[in-house]
Parts: sequence; structure tokens; C-alpha cells
Amino acid sequence: VLRARLPEVPIVDLTHEVRAQDVRAGSLALKRAAPYLATGVVVAVVDPGVGTARRPVAVQASVADLVFVGPDNGLMMPALDALGGPALAVELENATYQLPSPGPTFAGRDIFAPAAALLADGGEIESLGPLLDLQTLARLPPLVCRKAGDALEVEVAWVDRFGNVQLAGGPGDLPGDRQARAGGADSLFSVRRQRHPQAEANAAAGAAWSARIVHTFADLAPGELGLLVDSYGGLALSLNGAGAAELLGLREHDVLVLEPAGFGRPSPYD
Amino acid sequence: VLRARLPEVPIVDLTHEVRAQDVRAGSLALKRAAPYLATGVVVAVVDPGVGTARRPVAVQASVADLVFVGPDNGLMMPALDALGGPALAVELENATYQLPSPGPTFAGRDIFAPAAALLADGGEIESLGPLLDLQTLARLPPLVCRKAGDALEVEVAWVDRFGNVQLAGGPGDLPGDRQARAGGADSLFSVRRQRHPQAEANAAAGAAWSARIVHTFADLAPGELGLLVDSYGGLALSLNGAGAAELLGLREHDVLVLEPAGFGRPSPYD
Amino acid sequence: VLRARLPEVPIVDLTHEVRAQDVRAGSLALKRAAPYLATGVVVAVVDPGVGTARRPVAVQASVADLVFVGPDNGLMMPALDALGGPALAVELENATYQLPSPGPTFAGRDIFAPAAALLADGGEIESLGPLLDLQTLARLPPLVCRKAGDALEVEVAWVDRFGNVQLAGGPGDLPGDRQARAGGADSLFSVRRQRHPQAEANAAAGAAWSARIVHTFADLAPGELGLLVDSYGGLALSLNGAGAAELLGLREHDVLVLEPAGFGRPSPYD
Repeated sequence: VLRARLPEVPIVDLTHEVRAQDVRAGSLALKRAAPYLATGVVVAVVDPGVGTARRPVAVQASVADLVFVGPDNGLMMPALDALGGPALAVELENATYQLPSPGPTFAGRDIFAPAAALLADGGEIESLGPLLDLQTLARLPPLVCRKAGDALEVEVAWVDRFGNVQLAGGPGDLPGDRQARAGGADSLFSVRRQRHPQAEANAAAGAAWSARIVHTFADLAPGELGLLVDSYGGLALSLNGAGAAELLGLREHDVLVLEPAGFGRPSPYD
Repeated sequence: VLRARLPEVPIVDLTHEVRAQDVRAGSLALKRAAPYLATGVVVAVVDPGVGTARRPVAVQASVADLVFVGPDNGLMMPALDALGGPALAVELENATYQLPSPGPTFAGRDIFAPAAALLADGGEIESLGPLLDLQTLARLPPLVCRKAGDALEVEVAWVDRFGNVQLAGGPGDLPGDRQARAGGADSLFSVRRQRHPQAEANAAAGAAWSARIVHTFADLAPGELGLLVDSYGGLALSLNGAGAAELLGLREHDVLVLEPAGFGRPSPYD
Repeated sequence: VLRARLPEVPIVDLTHEVRAQDVRAGSLALKRAAPYLATGVVVAVVDPGVGTARRPVAVQASVADLVFVGPDNGLMMPALDALGGPALAVELENATYQLPSPGPTFAGRDIFAPAAALLADGGEIESLGPLLDLQTLARLPPLVCRKAGDALEVEVAWVDRFGNVQLAGGPGDLPGDRQARAGGADSLFSVRRQRHPQAEANAAAGAAWSARIVHTFADLAPGELGLLVDSYGGLALSLNGAGAAELLGLREHDVLVLEPAGFGRPSPYD
């Protein structure tokens, strides 16, 4: 639909590998890409609520010449927030710019793609429908990242295809002194899994591991678990030469408890 | 090969996710996309018969400025039929427009891509080889969709990645009165699986379910089975919040028997 | 990153389906594509050594107007060799043409893509960093393909998605006379698996099969094993109508021993 209307405009497939209906995974993939997007229009569709009352919207970012087009279900907000937040939003209500459907509306094809084509062709966002109160845009529940005594409780945000476990926090969220966080010394953290508080509040704590703060995979011994800053600036758990997620049994939504556990390499009694 | 010859022409990857050698699935994917294709050339290759005598062809559609290039094995015919049928076909016989191969011909690379590049660059379809009698173009066996007494026997055409079960018929094929078909009331259909007649003609009938005619997923209770018109205008079986195909054990080629089963929500004794 | 810098330059996704960290598979995929690549820049990233000392490089091919950009880990060399070998190489050391990272360098995004954008935009390769001695470019260990008495020992290079088993040799490597190799007669080869010499040198030989030299899949009876020249000019083992790799239990890195086994179709006692 985009190509039929805009034969010459470059189209980039950011990803088609988000799991079906996983709005959160889609929102994080979009957020990771956001700082690298060129001027243009982003169409984002991950929507278990197809056919329900959630609104189709177009949202202009504040600090980039980017408009996001998709469902008002929170999918696009982390990326927008990474670009200064939403500056202006409209509901895609104007049927003039929608495609008739042989059945129920297929929003990606019938609403979002024609709206994106209009915008990419220089059309005015206001022509697509009425302005929305930015406060009414839906947001996903925030990921867990909080201090708890000397520990950090932090949620697994994403497991990449190499099995690295990206956490919902950055190095500044780590407890301990600045030197420990910098990883200049061989700072250790104990890492254990906590059940998601919304699932089973008083479930028994899970397994525990020892992770060393390092700068890169290559600083780890084979099979050693490391805590590092990844290429997106967030904390990640990685194993040298293997997928950390699979070996530790970690999945998205798991909450981990990270506690400082001294310096030096793990003792043989660990 | 396309890009080397046509550096600037837009190329769209419609899909590379058809199962290996599944000509029927490819033909249905192409048919779904057909109404939305821009002017241009479509290269389609799903071909278990590589190396056999089936002909490489280019076929012009009747009611769109589209030429389909691929094997003469039925793959492209449903899409062509959705565009008014074939208007003109040639066999890709002219070696001038083929690529020499380091081994046996790889048709997509050596025959179809160069032919598509020629056509997309304004070349004449007749230059690619001799005209073919349109009646000789191969067709796949038609999908089952027939009245049988008060029932509709209809084949599973496609299971999408959300597990929705698309049937080889539209709402007009449903038995019962117009009101039932419209789904205005809470019309119910009983749905059971029949063995494919070509497989085991007198096999025992399979499991049976009750499906309610609805307009959209969101009209279904969690876990309820619905019969709805999908975004391509065909009938589909869907479950709210789950994949219908997996839960019901349905696959492409299964034939279902749909019978009117009264009105109102399913009774507790259903 | 490429698109943000080069909105109008065509970008082709050669493949994103190489297994994580499988440099060899990536190198072979690139080699198969090499003869068909247009003038331009190729970005190739398969790199288990991220974060280690291996160099990011750009390498100009000798007999094509192509520059390869990626890690100096052997990934790009088979493709370069297919294009006359490397003509000139630089290390991507000039930080002016690199992207700052919010964490450790993500080479594809922060180094390779900006370098490729510069080159595709007409920039000089020498501006990216110092010239390298071509002899120092890393190479992968060569695949096994050697005569051993009357037999050919040859490694499985690649299993395609249809289950065809591509071998690391061409028809000229086959033992036997020219007629046998040509497959004009119904030449037979016995095929058995040998453990990789680097794994278990004196391991017991594996299963053995009989393969007939044919020109194309279609010359095989259903279920018959054939030895043929594939569309890339190399030897391949194929079954008519099934995946040879799965049925024979063959994988990449397996070494096969091929021996002439007479003429004519397999006897009933084979």
C-alpha cells in the first residue's frame, strides 16, 4: 500500500520479528532504533486489540522530524519519549485517507499505511483527524527498576538473539560506590531472580549467580557471567560464548535482584 | 540480479516466508496481496518442479498494469484471476535475456530476475519468447467450497501467524437465511472436520465445535470460537486471545463442515 | 544508520538468516552472492569476537567495483577471492567517520554502517584509516576437499533450506574418469561420512549410501539419492522430493568420502 502510493520513497523494514501481539517487545525494539531514525514517518503495528475501541493515531515527536503512526496502545511511547516526548497527536479519523476493506478493517493496511503515505508525501498531520490531548495517549506499565535497601530490583527488558539479557536499567542505577559501578576493579554482584510482584508476591526467590562487572564480552572467562553496559547504554547480563538467558533460564518480565558482592574474582567456594 | 540491472527501481519483498515447495500457500499469499499491488512486475517462485519440463512464463493481468513472472505451475493464477484473469502470456524462451549459470539453471536468478528486469525497464513482453495459449496455463486444483444439503463443506485455505483459520469461502457461501449470515443475531454454526475426500473418503468425522458469527474478535468472550469475515473478505475461524488452529488441531487442506445450529449463545449443554 | 545518511541509495538485504556467530556460513552465503553483486559497498557482520582486538576493515575487490566492509575475521575473504582477491584494504580507524555509542561500540551500527555510507557516497577508502598489508587479512581454515587414493574427501559446506547438501568441491574434484564425472552414464558413487579429522581422527566411519550422478533432481526416482552439480557450480547431494541432509543426518562440517562404485542403477543387493 505504501509502495503503490509512493513508488520512489525509501522504505526501511526496521523489524518484522516481534512476537505476535507482544506490544512491550515491539515498544522496546522501536525505542532502541529511535535515536538512529532518519527524518520521516514510522509505521508501528503490534496490536492484540484489533477490532476494539483503541484509537489509531499519528504522533509527532518533539526533538526529531519524525511522526509515528500506529495504535494508541503504548507501543510507540517509549520511542517517542526517547525523542523528547510527543509534541502533537491526532486520531486517524478522516475516512478520506483510509482504504475501503473487503472485510473488517486491517488497520496496518487500511488506516496506518495510507496515513503514513500522506505524511511522507508532505501532507499535514492535522488533515488526518482531530487533535488529541497528549495526556490521554496510552502508556504501557513501566518496567521494574528500583532500589530496595542495598539492592537493585530490575526487570528483564529484552533477550536478544544471542541470549544476552538486557535489563530495564542503566549503570547509574546500580547500588554501590562509583568505583564498583565503573567496573574498574573486578566488582562482583550477586544476581538472583525474583518472581514478578504482580504474579506471585511471596513466591520463593529463584536461583542466584555471581556476575562480574566488565566492559566487554571479551573480558570474561569462558562460561563466566558478566554484567556490562550494552551498546544501547543499558545494563545487560552476558556469558562469554553462550546465551546467558537460556543457561540461567531467564525470560522477559523476570525481575532480578542485584546486590554488591565484594571485589575480586569469584572465590572457589562461590 | 534485479538490483544490479536496475539500481534505482523500487523492489518490494512481498514475502519470503512461504514454506519450501508449498505452491498453494504461495498462490494464496500472492492472491491476498494482488489487489494492493502497484503497477509493475511481480516475480513469484515456489517450485518443487525445478529442473523438470514446466515452462517459465510471463503473464500480463487483464485489469491491472501488472506482469507476473514465474513458473507455469499454478502459483500465479489465483492472483491473476483476482485481477481479471490472464490477458497475455509468453514462455521465457529467449536465451538472450537469461543469465548463464555455473551449473543447472537457478530459474529465479537466471531466468525470472533478468526477465523481470527487462520488463520493469520498459522492455516488451513479446521479446521474451513465444505467445502461449492462455488455456494451457497450469492451474492448481480448486479448493473445496460446496453446499452439501444444509451444510457448507469448505477447505482450510490458510492459517495465519496468529492462528486464525481462513476458509476457502466467503460469507455468501454460508447456508441459512440472510439474517443468520449477516450475524446480526447471535447465529451459531456447528463446525466439524471432515477428512479430505481425496485422502480417506469414508474416514470418521472429526471433532465438532460451536462457532458464533461475529463481526470482530472483540465480540468474542475469552476462549470463544467465532466465525467472521476477515480483512480479505473471506470467512475465518478465530478464537479471542488464542490461536484457533492450534487449539482445534486444524491445518491447511482440512475440510470443515459448517451447519446452522440455531440462534443465541451456546447453551450450557453444548 | 545507512538510510539516515543516504536517503536515496538503494540498499539490498542479501540475508539476515545466517546463524548467530557462524562466520563460516556467512562467508559462504556471501561467496555465493558475490558474482551477482552490483557495483557498490557490501556490509557484512558475523562476529563472535565483538569487543576483542580484531580489526574493522574495508577491502576493495580486484575485479569488481565492490568494497567489502566488516570485521577482519575471514568472513569476507571467500567472496573477495571469487572477485579476484583483495586489491586494497584499510583499517577503519578514523573516528571522524564513526558514531558515538551510548555503551560499548556496536560495530555494525557505529563503525561499519558509517564507513559504508561514506564509501557509497563517493568518499575515498583511504580516508577511513591506514592501509593494511593484504597478507595480514585473516582467513578461515580451508574446507576439506582432497584426493585420498581413489576417493574424494570433501566437507559439507552448506545445507540449504530444502535440505540439499552442498559440498566443498566441484565436479572436477571427483575421482574416476571423465565419463563418470560427466554423469552421462549412470555413474554411481558410494558416499560415507567420516568424522572431522580435527574432532576424532580415528573415529569409526559412519553410514554409507549410494548416490547416482545426475543432471537434475528430476532425473532421480522418488527417494533416490543423487550427486549433482548445483546452481552455484559445486557438487551437491540431493534427494528427489525430500531433504537429503535430514534423512542422512548430515550437517555442515561433516566430511564425506566419495568413491566410484560402478555404473548402472544400484543393484538390489546394494
